[in-house]
Amino acid sequence: MTHKIAILGASGYTGAELVRIIATHPAMEIAALSADRKAGQEMASVYPQLRHLKLPTLSTIEQIDFSRIDLCFAALPHGLSQALVRDLPASVKVVDLGADFRLRDPAAYEKWYGAPHVATELQKEAVYGLTEFYRDEIRSARLVAGTGCNAATVQFALRPLIEAGLIDLDEIICDLKNGISGAGRSLKENMLFTERQTDVLGYSQGGKHRHLGEFDQEFSAIAGRKVEIMFTPHLVPMSRGILASCYVRGEAEAIHAALAARYAAEPFLTVLPFGQAPGTGAVAGSNFCHIGVIGDRKPGRALVVAALDNLNKGSSGQAVQNANLMLGLDETAGLMLAPVFP
Amino acid sequence: MTHKIAILGASGYTGAELVRIIATHPAMEIAALSADRKAGQEMASVYPQLRHLKLPTLSTIEQIDFSRIDLCFAALPHGLSQALVRDLPASVKVVDLGADFRLRDPAAYEKWYGAPHVATELQKEAVYGLTEFYRDEIRSARLVAGTGCNAATVQFALRPLIEAGLIDLDEIICDLKNGISGAGRSLKENMLFTERQTDVLGYSQGGKHRHLGEFDQEFSAIAGRKVEIMFTPHLVPMSRGILASCYVRGEAEAIHAALAARYAAEPFLTVLPFGQAPGTGAVAGSNFCHIGVIGDRKPGRALVVAALDNLNKGSSGQAVQNANLMLGLDETAGLMLAPVFP
Amino acid sequence: MTHKIAILGASGYTGAELVRIIATHPAMEIAALSADRKAGQEMASVYPQLRHLKLPTLSTIEQIDFSRIDLCFAALPHGLSQALVRDLPASVKVVDLGADFRLRDPAAYEKWYGAPHVATELQKEAVYGLTEFYRDEIRSARLVAGTGCNAATVQFALRPLIEAGLIDLDEIICDLKNGISGAGRSLKENMLFTERQTDVLGYSQGGKHRHLGEFDQEFSAIAGRKVEIMFTPHLVPMSRGILASCYVRGEAEAIHAALAARYAAEPFLTVLPFGQAPGTGAVAGSNFCHIGVIGDRKPGRALVVAALDNLNKGSSGQAVQNANLMLGLDETAGLMLAPVFP
Amino acid sequence: MTHKIAILGASGYTGAELVRIIATHPAMEIAALSADRKAGQEMASVYPQLRHLKLPTLSTIEQIDFSRIDLCFAALPHGLSQALVRDLPASVKVVDLGADFRLRDPAAYEKWYGAPHVATELQKEAVYGLTEFYRDEIRSARLVAGTGCNAATVQFALRPLIEAGLIDLDEIICDLKNGISGAGRSLKENMLFTERQTDVLGYSQGGKHRHLGEFDQEFSAIAGRKVEIMFTPHLVPMSRGILASCYVRGEAEAIHAALAARYAAEPFLTVLPFGQAPGTGAVAGSNFCHIGVIGDRKPGRALVVAALDNLNKGSSGQAVQNANLMLGLDETAGLMLAPVFP
Repeated sequence: MTHKIAILGASGYTGAELVRIIATHPAMEIAALSADRKAGQEMASVYPQLRHLKLPTLSTIEQIDFSRIDLCFAALPHGLSQALVRDLPASVKVVDLGADFRLRDPAAYEKWYGAPHVATELQKEAVYGLTEFYRDEIRSARLVAGTGCNAATVQFALRPLIEAGLIDLDEIICDLKNGISGAGRSLKENMLFTERQTDVLGYSQGGKHRHLGEFDQEFSAIAGRKVEIMFTPHLVPMSRGILASCYVRGEAEAIHAALAARYAAEPFLTVLPFGQAPGTGAVAGSNFCHIGVIGDRKPGRALVVAALDNLNKGSSGQAVQNANLMLGLDETAGLMLAPVFP
Repeated sequence: MTHKIAILGASGYTGAELVRIIATHPAMEIAALSADRKAGQEMASVYPQLRHLKLPTLSTIEQIDFSRIDLCFAALPHGLSQALVRDLPASVKVVDLGADFRLRDPAAYEKWYGAPHVATELQKEAVYGLTEFYRDEIRSARLVAGTGCNAATVQFALRPLIEAGLIDLDEIICDLKNGISGAGRSLKENMLFTERQTDVLGYSQGGKHRHLGEFDQEFSAIAGRKVEIMFTPHLVPMSRGILASCYVRGEAEAIHAALAARYAAEPFLTVLPFGQAPGTGAVAGSNFCHIGVIGDRKPGRALVVAALDNLNKGSSGQAVQNANLMLGLDETAGLMLAPVFP
Repeated sequence: MTHKIAILGASGYTGAELVRIIATHPAMEIAALSADRKAGQEMASVYPQLRHLKLPTLSTIEQIDFSRIDLCFAALPHGLSQALVRDLPASVKVVDLGADFRLRDPAAYEKWYGAPHVATELQKEAVYGLTEFYRDEIRSARLVAGTGCNAATVQFALRPLIEAGLIDLDEIICDLKNGISGAGRSLKENMLFTERQTDVLGYSQGGKHRHLGEFDQEFSAIAGRKVEIMFTPHLVPMSRGILASCYVRGEAEAIHAALAARYAAEPFLTVLPFGQAPGTGAVAGSNFCHIGVIGDRKPGRALVVAALDNLNKGSSGQAVQNANLMLGLDETAGLMLAPVFP
Repeated sequence: MTHKIAILGASGYTGAELVRIIATHPAMEIAALSADRKAGQEMASVYPQLRHLKLPTLSTIEQIDFSRIDLCFAALPHGLSQALVRDLPASVKVVDLGADFRLRDPAAYEKWYGAPHVATELQKEAVYGLTEFYRDEIRSARLVAGTGCNAATVQFALRPLIEAGLIDLDEIICDLKNGISGAGRSLKENMLFTERQTDVLGYSQGGKHRHLGEFDQEFSAIAGRKVEIMFTPHLVPMSRGILASCYVRGEAEAIHAALAARYAAEPFLTVLPFGQAPGTGAVAGSNFCHIGVIGDRKPGRALVVAALDNLNKGSSGQAVQNANLMLGLDETAGLMLAPVFP
């Protein structure tokens, strides 16, 4: 059986990545694509990469007949999903790739996003979309909130360690190296090719990045106490990929063993042999995440490194993985595409 | 039914691309991987991109039991396939990705490759692997010779025009822009990241590039007279892709119509609307080729531009496409992977 | 003696490159910087690269006291210089880096730029800024019109050959590979890092690029008859540099000899040994231009290749070179900065 | 007066960068260039970037008449300088860009470099070349040991803080993002363009990088007790630049004030306004270093970020700065070249 899919916000990078993945998905069919500002255009003119596919013409959201849709991916700018999802027919399952439903606490939402939430009842209902940790809830959810791409990367590195009490909760420092596609396709002077090709630069430093809201929510919930990490992303001159270097206090070999055990049965998470570090080039274009653990010369200190593709495992691949669960499909359906290298 | 596949030369980029494609191929299974200098290593350590796959350990060619193999891809340095293919069991079909069997004339081979051919009887038997133009012969072939990546790109742009007599055969100038992966994974100072990142540079200019042997053979055969094109490749700072800008004399609209008609039913070749130019970014990571035709302000002059991924449609994707035909499979099996962008 | 310099349009890339060059110029001092939309900001916040310099605050053009200015560089968007230059005090020398005064013929200007020229008397007065060919006129000029960056590159390759009658004037094909900075710092979706990093793509193909107006004007004037070349630029993933591959009919060795003789005494133009091709990486960040000549296997055909830095020799370096002449300084003053590599 | 300079190891990237800087230096003249494996070649063929310069032919070290040399830069592979410097005439001043004389303690040298030092008496004599902190000793030194490029970057960020007792000495974590030129021009598979263009990857993690020897020596000497930092470099896809993100415990505003005060009079070190972060693109191609301080949301934690060009301020620029002092020249002579952007 083929499920009818709508993608809202198809002209952005995560929208295009959804189309790319679904193009070879065995049980999904794209029935509608929206892109408000580009409504009326063909996807082939917005993304010539997708020219070989037979795709619906881009439309406005209003033009979509949701009664024909089984599941809807919302890849919209932050803030637009709240009212939209509230107004969809209850029969439509939704995977939201934006930030609107990631935080369960209305106060936390307002703190990090600067405005009150307009669909707080849905906020409660939404399941946090970190598949490997919310699998059962996702299976039965109507609304799943995709995680931030940074949030996914760091959580894969640290959740099992916090759960197992293996690291000092007050001494977690996460330094991230981020591909430029994380900034999306919107026009910003500092995202021009010429501005980025030979530059490495941190941003949202010092505890200002919105993904901290997710870290605070998730890590504090696991630990049963307030946990605040230090988290600094950096722009590096590549299109895709996040490398999270997490500096922690704990025994490196025990940390490695815990991660290896926790992820042994996971199809998309791979823990490298102890002492090996992953690179983003080994996962680009795929739904895989590689994790490495290295002990420091200083006893009791370790470096946990996670690498994934921000557009794929960090966003659209995760979204399809969640949709597979919500639709009762094999969780890996359509997602075993190997990374592209070089 | 699943066919058992051997890949010889699996540690090079085209070898790794074959593994990537076959990883999601519905009817092929990798039964053996050779890499003489890296024999004994796991593919995961040579290409961490392939870590999620269960693959045979790299071996020497001698260690492979070819009686268990249905089809063998030879992705070896030029010159090594000749004796090797001669010694394989007749039951093993072979797709050679190197240059050893591209030229049918022993004298031409010796001219371009500097040494006599050692398996001239196979040279005659080998079918030239430009799928869209040798489909029937490939279907029944035991040995298919993959084309050069530049040779494929330019032929897609020009063969139908030469066949139809639409362009002046003495006035063909092909200027190519080439991704760095065309140089393979071998160690050369001028292929270091630092040497290439901010440089554009021609090479093998003035009629010295070996792919000219293929152009001369193929275009002369079609035209029924000697045809010699001008052909200049250039290194540009990207990993994958070839853009061939072909300057020809002929009526641009007639050229466009001929290409559009010729490729209308081809699954992997797309002719853009008249006046539009393709880019390499629209085909990277895929088996697709985009072709555009632009008329010049000077009447009777046209620009025909073809873009493809040198590692995929220009080499390993083409090889799988040919193998599909040789094994009686759907020609597109495993090859509908969408390009990766950005 | 130090000359007082104003730079109009200092927030664009050519404006910033002017500042970079003048920063170590022995006889120029920046007295005013304008950037209408960024007026009031410090240059250090617009270009942190220039933070170590003591520079005037960005102002509007109206705020500049031109009575204190000896020479003014206008690095403005096309079309804005015409009225502006007309209204400047006659005592101020002007080097215009835009397109407003490149074409001497009002009809040609209107054809290529789509609007009538509003200062046609200045259009006549302006000297075309290709230093090596207009040196004497530039020395005594009040207004010099900087050439297009593509126009400079190709003219360095071809002018001496047209002058000497060494090539067929009806068979000139110029294929260019262009760094992204040629598009300037303005916001365009297709100039985002993510859009360009893995793409090579032609633009303004088929005789539509405005620099053709310059080629037509200059080459026809030299030849004493109408000359129309084919000219196709391509975007390649690097910030700086133009490589012009010019396919011509003529004797390669005679072509090489003519270029070598013509440029033997030029401080910034280097002709490589016969058969060698230049790369953009060898001139990036400098005012040098490298030229190579390669004979083809087809007799009577040659490839002339020129490489320069579009922001420097193709624009701001050329502008300073011209300003040096206009101010009676050593032509090379401030311009002997070596290329930056890697 | 012009000083006669020899550069040993001129075919490597730091050697070429020395030539680039000295090309416009007012008081240095290159009298000899050595490159053992490329002896007999012209510099123009090894680095076409330097083609416009009149330079000596590359020779072996033995062929150099050191009696004519005032100062010698040794840009040799680690280990080769020890015996060499010992055998030079005492009249020749030496700036060593390699690691041979960075560590004053023979045991530390052997620990980090795996072999005993063969010129321990010189090891004692050598002055550590971090100009801004060893200025007086450098002025009167015969032998100056250039610092590691990572070592320079981190020390600029942290030395004043350790001196002033502003940060917790046991809680220093330095995460570095490094341009690829740091690996030099030697042939390594993992430094090919194709391997690095889309990858970010840590290396020498966990306390194994040799620059730790310098940190241990310098920071412990300042603090008067053993100091061991955590230090992890990462390869990012750009040619030049190091960004050091240093996570420390201390009051961010006090840290900022201390750095701003310490460097207020330094010509090459700039402290950005509080809360601003530097990028590598703002210093590439120059001898400048930008430093920023950001407070974290967690009180008592701060991020100190330093950016410099590894080939320039991190190596060859520093070397010229030291040579200027040793020769009694203005410390900034030849070094005020502005960064190149974009």
